[in-house]
Amino acid sequence: MGEFELIRRYFAGLTPEAADVALGIGDDAALLRVPAGHELVVSTDTLVAGRHFPLATAPADIGWKALAVNLSDLAAMGATARWFTLALTLPEADEAWTAGLASGMRELALRHRVALVGGDTTRGPLSITITAMGLVPAGQGLRRDGARAGDLVCVTGTLGDAALALRRLGRADQDPVEQALRLRLDRPTPRLDAGLALRGLASAALDLSDGLAGDLRHLCAASGVGAELDPAALPRSAAFEGLAAGLSAEECFALQAQGGDDYELCVCLPPESLAEARARLAPLALSEIGRITAEPGLRLRYPDGRTAVLAATGYSHF
Amino acid sequence: MGEFELIRRYFAGLTPEAADVALGIGDDAALLRVPAGHELVVSTDTLVAGRHFPLATAPADIGWKALAVNLSDLAAMGATARWFTLALTLPEADEAWTAGLASGMRELALRHRVALVGGDTTRGPLSITITAMGLVPAGQGLRRDGARAGDLVCVTGTLGDAALALRRLGRADQDPVEQALRLRLDRPTPRLDAGLALRGLASAALDLSDGLAGDLRHLCAASGVGAELDPAALPRSAAFEGLAAGLSAEECFALQAQGGDDYELCVCLPPESLAEARARLAPLALSEIGRITAEPGLRLRYPDGRTAVLAATGYSHF
Repeated sequence: MGEFELIRRYFAGLTPEAADVALGIGDDAALLRVPAGHELVVSTDTLVAGRHFPLATAPADIGWKALAVNLSDLAAMGATARWFTLALTLPEADEAWTAGLASGMRELALRHRVALVGGDTTRGPLSITITAMGLVPAGQGLRRDGARAGDLVCVTGTLGDAALALRRLGRADQDPVEQALRLRLDRPTPRLDAGLALRGLASAALDLSDGLAGDLRHLCAASGVGAELDPAALPRSAAFEGLAAGLSAEECFALQAQGGDDYELCVCLPPESLAEARARLAPLALSEIGRITAEPGLRLRYPDGRTAVLAATGYSHF
Repeated sequence: MGEFELIRRYFAGLTPEAADVALGIGDDAALLRVPAGHELVVSTDTLVAGRHFPLATAPADIGWKALAVNLSDLAAMGATARWFTLALTLPEADEAWTAGLASGMRELALRHRVALVGGDTTRGPLSITITAMGLVPAGQGLRRDGARAGDLVCVTGTLGDAALALRRLGRADQDPVEQALRLRLDRPTPRLDAGLALRGLASAALDLSDGLAGDLRHLCAASGVGAELDPAALPRSAAFEGLAAGLSAEECFALQAQGGDDYELCVCLPPESLAEARARLAPLALSEIGRITAEPGLRLRYPDGRTAVLAATGYSHF
């Protein structure tokens, strides 16, 4: 099958007619309409087989996740997702696999009304690169560099689920609690609604992909501040509470702060904005986990008042 | 070395301050300003090692080519190139190699004033995906679907150089004629100025990446027309004339029409516009190579009046 036919057949459902797409897939490039008063928001992320997802992951889950991690970046900017391009490198033309990939991607794309506007299919070791594009009213994008000493550090949802799922791969696949945890690894939820709702309230934001400790360090560096975290305040899902019951506090902290793949938003905001932010995000939880400090670096502050420096770790690809 | 440091160090020269970049590399996403009255033009292309470039290619040439093939798509739309994102998958953190890649990419980026606005570095088998973004006045983009029966089929520059260079890999590397040919494979020239100049004149256009025969077939399908080509009219460089002297007419035609990697523009226009188009593109040659026909399909018309059907071939990745 030719690459053009491959793309056309399986990804047709991802390219709906949209008023802001003057010309979609099939030409040398797409022609897109950016409304006046808005900035274009662009991010790109690659998933490599065996590195960003287990080799045995279902193709539909890979399709979902490849798009989700990119939409998560748009969410962290407070953007509305609009379009994406897909660069797909496949070892062979496997129809069933490609159809599965497209179906998972389509499911998430339809949910957020984001249209596939361009693609490239090449032969090689499996990897998927998506470039996601969105819109934000000019000047209202959520950046990393606006955190101020005294701001609260908050996170959406729960942390550590995906890291724990990765650690428990292959265990009791039919158990509904294991499945709930596994979904958090395979089908992360990009927090687009939350990002939108936080415009005008958050002083800084980013999405948690490599782990809270490493990601928050980037936010602090960009803002020229530091942060203190309460390790006991990191929010846990019911599945995490149940399945991590046998782990030490240190192991749980490592999963929650250094495991990565959460795709929750980490948000800084002045204390007086917390109630409003929570009201806007409900029923999604927004947990206060620490404070921004003038002193640089990351520290842990335990309930008894002791503090500890949190060393630079986080996930690094090299 | 961390991925952030890697990106920052080698690609810093690719992210100049620009009035239309509200926020560049280093946040979750870039914030870009699209001027009123313009459409955003977006294209994405992947280069996989050993497939899109020989494994022994110099890293600077790979960097140039990865960007060039994407800018070529913008050229085919008549767009001005503005920004690009880079998704780089590397087997290991090789500083000298990465520095080389960045230097070749920077050289081309500076020439066309296009800024790197986002990136992702992952570990895995070598591949490079770039998403290029440009601008075109609304409604003025050059599309594939506007060719009409009676239009001339023209191409910029010369065809077959890259395909012949690939065939001659490793021969007499110090010979200046071989080197000239090899440059056409390693450092293709995106025809951005030509694309811009053809706005308002061309009825349809695309860039030649997979080979004239296959690419023109796509243009004809999109326009609902066919085409007749004069094989003797396909333009040749001096290097091609010299080094292909021992090849048969059939072999030369295969290199020129089916070899791929030309990155010239194939343009359709009414006969009365040819002189104006040539004047605008000079000193770049614009060669008339055939005509658009109402009858679908591609045919060859020889000077003696014989015709032959040109079978569907072109480069396919699967």
